[in-house]
Amino acid sequence: MRFVKGHGTENTFIVVPDPEGTLTLSPRLVAALCDPRRGVGADGVLRVVRTKAVPEVPEVAELADEADEAEWFMDYRNADGSTAEMCGNGLRVYARYLVDAGLVPSGELHVATRDGLRWVTLGTNGDVTVDVGPVEVLGAGRASIAGRTYDGLRLRAGTPHLACVLGEPVADVDLTRPPTLDTGQFPDGANVELICPLAENQIEMRVHERGVGETRSCGTGAVAAAVAAAHAAGTPGGAWTVRVPGGRLQVTLTEAGSLLSGPAVLVAEGQVRREWLDTHG
Amino acid sequence: MRFVKGHGTENTFIVVPDPEGTLTLSPRLVAALCDPRRGVGADGVLRVVRTKAVPEVPEVAELADEADEAEWFMDYRNADGSTAEMCGNGLRVYARYLVDAGLVPSGELHVATRDGLRWVTLGTNGDVTVDVGPVEVLGAGRASIAGRTYDGLRLRAGTPHLACVLGEPVADVDLTRPPTLDTGQFPDGANVELICPLAENQIEMRVHERGVGETRSCGTGAVAAAVAAAHAAGTPGGAWTVRVPGGRLQVTLTEAGSLLSGPAVLVAEGQVRREWLDTHG
Repeated sequence: MRFVKGHGTENTFIVVPDPEGTLTLSPRLVAALCDPRRGVGADGVLRVVRTKAVPEVPEVAELADEADEAEWFMDYRNADGSTAEMCGNGLRVYARYLVDAGLVPSGELHVATRDGLRWVTLGTNGDVTVDVGPVEVLGAGRASIAGRTYDGLRLRAGTPHLACVLGEPVADVDLTRPPTLDTGQFPDGANVELICPLAENQIEMRVHERGVGETRSCGTGAVAAAVAAAHAAGTPGGAWTVRVPGGRLQVTLTEAGSLLSGPAVLVAEGQVRREWLDTHG
Repeated sequence: MRFVKGHGTENTFIVVPDPEGTLTLSPRLVAALCDPRRGVGADGVLRVVRTKAVPEVPEVAELADEADEAEWFMDYRNADGSTAEMCGNGLRVYARYLVDAGLVPSGELHVATRDGLRWVTLGTNGDVTVDVGPVEVLGAGRASIAGRTYDGLRLRAGTPHLACVLGEPVADVDLTRPPTLDTGQFPDGANVELICPLAENQIEMRVHERGVGETRSCGTGAVAAAVAAAHAAGTPGGAWTVRVPGGRLQVTLTEAGSLLSGPAVLVAEGQVRREWLDTHG
């Protein structure tokens, strides 16, 4: 099994090329691949498969009329082996791989995901921009972290978020334990972003991802953070720089959607060994 | 740069073949390679280089008279880029690689390390056995962990250890923070092993490694744990099974030395990408 390891602002991915859809990626195998101790190690797996080769995926079947626009399907798997609809940083690494492998020309393209078609563009400076779709503002919310209450904005950006704009640097908040959320406000839990405005349209952010813990970056979290910061500043949207522990992202908020830009790095390429696959597959 | 990623009871290593010693592995590059976010991810790097190709390494120069016995030198680097004398689990993975790559025949061999020549043998069942040398018993010691005092045995197995035999399972001890040691007893700190006897000559062990945190396994720690368990049982040594979070190790204590046996797994092989090396090298 061939693979490429890459990252987008230190969200890490194992890209597995499987153009004709011949591989079986069991949850057990995905979990072993993503395990940093027993396997290669990553936050998720991105299987690169032609949209026409996976008619059995229900979300792809729903795209049938539009699928001609999107030759490639991003089959995203979480580190625990489960599937997920979308991953903003994952899609940026996925697109970088497609261009790097010569599977699409550089420039603009559409990628099929379980959450529909997504538009991607590769800039001449190496950054990759993806449209992560509109963000829905649901109202006020709050979280308790290490005994303190944080007020924020409830948002839906594919996944549920609570984005809290603080009046102080975010470095000292203890995120080793999950924030406590009101189950009435967040029946399915949420990612929680802590945000500190740095300058005009510049913020820093830390994020606690639901079911994962604090991470180095979160694409939809960066978008949610920009929306909350714009809301707090009383501005309608615009272009934001979001500093995360793993690097720097650009978010552009328009009426039509939310663009997420940033680096997408391919680290190494290789092959998983046959004996290892026989044990873990 | 070619590499193989492997692990020994979930201590992870990046094996870098460099037979003629032409690579420059700067501390910065090693740290980036070992970074699970920006790089490949591992606990350390094992450069595979001919002993004759590294006359500039002082410890190899000291081995000159014996070096004919050991064609290969294990150039071990910690994840922070510093060098280390020896690593028991690393040497087991190193030897597995040598045989797998056809650089030595299977069976017995000597490997040159910064801590002298080490004898290794590859069993027919896939296990690799290394001689990690004698263990020096220094006397009683104690550590404070999460507000509780643990009494144990101070040992030197290359590195300093405090091995504490408990009368209860080790699962519940909170090792998220470093144990507090008496600086008079441990001027350079120590690895701390918590041990629970399971059956005759069988123990389970958890370990907090100095400067690292809790790890899934520690080769010299397993040897130290077996010595402490033998001491507590009033037996002279013998063969011990040591269960660690990352798997199972066998330790055989004799008057001549300490043998450490266990699996050594090669996960994947590949190449680090040129652009990435240009950025991080």
